[in-house]
Amino acid sequence: MKITSVNNDLIKETAKLLRGKYRAESGLFLLEGNKCIEEAIQSGLEITQIFSTEGFEEFPQRIEVTEAILSKISDAKSAPKAVAVAKQIKPEWSDKYKKVVLLEGIKDAGNLGTILRTAAAFGIDAIVLYGDTVDLYNPKCVRSAVGNLWKIPVFTEINLDIFTPFERVATLPKGNNVVNLKDYNPQEKTLVMFGSEADGLSEELKQFATKNVTIEMDSSVESLNLSVSAAVIMYKLSVQ
Amino acid sequence: MKITSVNNDLIKETAKLLRGKYRAESGLFLLEGNKCIEEAIQSGLEITQIFSTEGFEEFPQRIEVTEAILSKISDAKSAPKAVAVAKQIKPEWSDKYKKVVLLEGIKDAGNLGTILRTAAAFGIDAIVLYGDTVDLYNPKCVRSAVGNLWKIPVFTEINLDIFTPFERVATLPKGNNVVNLKDYNPQEKTLVMFGSEADGLSEELKQFATKNVTIEMDSSVESLNLSVSAAVIMYKLSVQ
Repeated sequence: MKITSVNNDLIKETAKLLRGKYRAESGLFLLEGNKCIEEAIQSGLEITQIFSTEGFEEFPQRIEVTEAILSKISDAKSAPKAVAVAKQIKPEWSDKYKKVVLLEGIKDAGNLGTILRTAAAFGIDAIVLYGDTVDLYNPKCVRSAVGNLWKIPVFTEINLDIFTPFERVATLPKGNNVVNLKDYNPQEKTLVMFGSEADGLSEELKQFATKNVTIEMDSSVESLNLSVSAAVIMYKLSVQ
Repeated sequence: MKITSVNNDLIKETAKLLRGKYRAESGLFLLEGNKCIEEAIQSGLEITQIFSTEGFEEFPQRIEVTEAILSKISDAKSAPKAVAVAKQIKPEWSDKYKKVVLLEGIKDAGNLGTILRTAAAFGIDAIVLYGDTVDLYNPKCVRSAVGNLWKIPVFTEINLDIFTPFERVATLPKGNNVVNLKDYNPQEKTLVMFGSEADGLSEELKQFATKNVTIEMDSSVESLNLSVSAAVIMYKLSVQ
């Protein structure tokens, strides 16, 4: 099958997936670039369509398209050689999870993608997105995660009660009752909570915490990038 | 003084500083946004001009301009309320430096800015940019550094011989003769070298290294974001 018009109905429908509203309604999302699509296929993600100028000819879902069409259904600066449509993953919670990272109000898709990639590298069992956050299936987040979006379960609607058996760590600026990361020894079951760069953790989650941890840093620097803070703490969890 | 035309000669000259070539020729660069400019003034950076719709009225270098002009001399998505022109810093090498980070062939301005911010937070003494790298004074890098660009000396032309007294650490993927970060104990004088995400460290720098270190990670993940790898290792240097 071949499509050459950017005004084709299927192309117009696919381009809608660039918007969060349509991703939520359809339960679908976009994968940009051959490498990303190949990794998704390998890890068993359900692919409903592959649009490409060349490549993926062996797949029944593949449709040959023009470069202009790939530009229209991608939001990368330079259009990739292939774009695929995949079904979003709805993970199920497991009581076996021991290391969980909660991100509250995270708005930067690049940061979220980078954190997912780091979390997969450091053996984090699950990620929880809490409050008003960027859409996990935002194309920028999918890109920043560099194929790691589907290697780690991400929960967006979760009851905090499941964390009762966990040590619940709030990551905070320096202050009273806050342990330096150097002196912090993670428990077997640990939830680490990060607030957004702009607002920090909410009062609700600060109250929910059973321990407060800070990353030691020079007083001349106000704060770290969120994906950097998260990486330093997740590394600590991984080597314990 | 007030300028209202985007075709004003001074505005056209200033807009040229969005390009690396003109930054290199003039030794000047752009600061975007009130907070960034305030921090630069506080830390003694030499400001030659401040363009703003309002604010900074007390500065003799201040010129009142329109929003359209600020858009023209900025590359941020939404134009800031003020843009300043500042002189680039030419730091002098000090034999007192103990913790130095070298970045080879780094191309992503956002990564570089984030690394500068993290390096300032973790007490790194100096940064060396080696090989063909992004311009430190790229507006995106200035933004990502969030006011930390001038808190840490950055060297772009340096003779590697000055690192003879240093332990010289290559950060590499897992392999023979590579120590896990967990088991690595930094020496008093340490140079840590990072390659680009695309190409890794060059043979030249691998040969120059006296020690090889890797960050332990899950085998399903190919690599970490460069600013994340750098953060995890710089944190280790900072708490030793």
